[in-house]
Amino acid sequence: MKGFVFHSPGRSAWEEVPDPDIKESTDAIVRVDTTTVCGTDLHILKGDVPEVRPGTVLGHEAVGEIVETGRDVHTVQPGDRVLVSCITACGRCGYCWERTYGQCRGGGGWILGHVIDGTQAEYVRVPYADLSVHALPGTVDSKDAVLLADIFPTAYEVGVMNGHVRPGDTVAVVGAGPIGLASIATARLFAPERIIAVDVAATRLEAAKSLGADAVADVEEAPEQLVADLTDGLGADVVIEAVGAPESFELCTRMVRPGGHVANVGVHGKPVTLHLEDLWIRNVTITMGVVDTYSTPTLLRMAAAGRLPTSSLVTHTFALDQMEEAYDVFGRGPDTGALKVVLGGQRHEVLAVRAA
Amino acid sequence: MKGFVFHSPGRSAWEEVPDPDIKESTDAIVRVDTTTVCGTDLHILKGDVPEVRPGTVLGHEAVGEIVETGRDVHTVQPGDRVLVSCITACGRCGYCWERTYGQCRGGGGWILGHVIDGTQAEYVRVPYADLSVHALPGTVDSKDAVLLADIFPTAYEVGVMNGHVRPGDTVAVVGAGPIGLASIATARLFAPERIIAVDVAATRLEAAKSLGADAVADVEEAPEQLVADLTDGLGADVVIEAVGAPESFELCTRMVRPGGHVANVGVHGKPVTLHLEDLWIRNVTITMGVVDTYSTPTLLRMAAAGRLPTSSLVTHTFALDQMEEAYDVFGRGPDTGALKVVLGGQRHEVLAVRAA
Repeated sequence: MKGFVFHSPGRSAWEEVPDPDIKESTDAIVRVDTTTVCGTDLHILKGDVPEVRPGTVLGHEAVGEIVETGRDVHTVQPGDRVLVSCITACGRCGYCWERTYGQCRGGGGWILGHVIDGTQAEYVRVPYADLSVHALPGTVDSKDAVLLADIFPTAYEVGVMNGHVRPGDTVAVVGAGPIGLASIATARLFAPERIIAVDVAATRLEAAKSLGADAVADVEEAPEQLVADLTDGLGADVVIEAVGAPESFELCTRMVRPGGHVANVGVHGKPVTLHLEDLWIRNVTITMGVVDTYSTPTLLRMAAAGRLPTSSLVTHTFALDQMEEAYDVFGRGPDTGALKVVLGGQRHEVLAVRAA
Repeated sequence: MKGFVFHSPGRSAWEEVPDPDIKESTDAIVRVDTTTVCGTDLHILKGDVPEVRPGTVLGHEAVGEIVETGRDVHTVQPGDRVLVSCITACGRCGYCWERTYGQCRGGGGWILGHVIDGTQAEYVRVPYADLSVHALPGTVDSKDAVLLADIFPTAYEVGVMNGHVRPGDTVAVVGAGPIGLASIATARLFAPERIIAVDVAATRLEAAKSLGADAVADVEEAPEQLVADLTDGLGADVVIEAVGAPESFELCTRMVRPGGHVANVGVHGKPVTLHLEDLWIRNVTITMGVVDTYSTPTLLRMAAAGRLPTSSLVTHTFALDQMEEAYDVFGRGPDTGALKVVLGGQRHEVLAVRAA
């Protein structure tokens, strides 16, 4: 089969790789119908995630069809249409027991396209299939569903929930790429007073507005001052970092009010400076993390009911074998206007019952 | 009267200063019977807290007697024996409304010995007296009570409560000075599986053991490895930073388990390096802050019942006018064996009803 292989920072290709086989009785093999490229994949290509070994097939998001299961897989069977989650869960370790699947110690967590071959391929082996794929209702099309493999649960759990967004809050989102936009969309579920989006690209700030940002600021236009002006000098209740760079993290810590939350969602490749000499007295809480995907079933129900603007983030679609072109367009997102790129298509009939 | 005045980093003296007067109708004047020196005062002397202006009387902890009140003070009156809290609360701003008194925007917060004259003096003016002093039950002696002005609520709220210590947790406390020791004592209230104390001084590690640490490590003796060995390689559930230095903060972030909490209590004068390139994926929560003192009434009840080892932290007592000597002995704590130094004495009869 073909897959997108990481060779070294800056070098990767869509090329022939061995077909995956069932290795453990809890594995499933999924034929990938739809996949996407994540900002995290770009961090991998830059060398920010050094545990990815040369030769690894990237990708941790997919919609597809189960084509084979190990004998201990009970919740899905060949022919089922499934969402392949970015997080694999053994279901038995202490972390899974507390539903913190992202930190699974039983061989799961974020492994696809990270420490084992991933979803940017024609087929993918999914370990612990019972807890790592989600059967898809026929009312969610693949382009919507694939955004629930990572982007939406990550924005919701690591950004909005960890940041404790509450009604009446001022929420600042730094970075209006796919994660930042999904953070805006899911922060709105908690009725904040206002959402302020910050980015370098005018096209992304326009997208932020259309998804519900009340105010936007170019990163060069003193976004701290805008936040201060809108909050009586106090700062934002919640600031979500959706870039993964030292300067954007540090900007977040300057925008947050005393007693507020900075929720880091970005993937970082370098240390950041934490100005504890200013912050120690300001009672700021800083969270960070990889998603646990505890919210995926809920978000799937909401998507089925048309309550999430999932596919409105999709700006470009490609055939699966246009992977390199998709990476290029996505990687130049601020210039190309690309938000989320989707590869592959719909191989199953989807019922047209989405709400308006 | 006499007071301990900060002139510039490294220069301070016990000297003649003007008597305080009632300035606002919500003020009280307290005759200081007992006061103490806090690690934060040492940070001020080093220049770590630049907003302290030359000429300020230091100190934010005291037990004393109300000698005068403004006309709008209703909860205490002259003759009352009170605890002067390190935190002053207007009681009316949005932060006070949410009981985050440490961030009071109405002119309170940590102001004593910081932005106005403090308690290391014969008399002190306490703004917003109704919410900023606590009438003392006759069953708590001054040496115990003065540790509830800052040390115990800070350790409990900013360390233990912000760190979310739970039954069965492994708790590491970095720094076994007064705040670290009070963190150990109050962490025990939540039945952790074990508490590991880290310090540079053998005398402090002995004190940590006597207050309930199950294991201790010199900072030079690979404390990360001890924590890893005791936790199946995972790290501590909660790490409390009770030093206020970049290297100790960074040590804390290396000792915490994925999904764990780092609760910074230390006062910092410099930025720290936050290794987000390692931590972003580990779902660590970092908190920091000045105390709110919401727990002071509870801790006072517990002290009255003999349920807190407050005065066991007191290693040295001095007369009020031995302030400079007290600073010297406290400042050389790791060498002198000083933990908490208390100045002044008991001017009121205290009932001897403490539990054994």
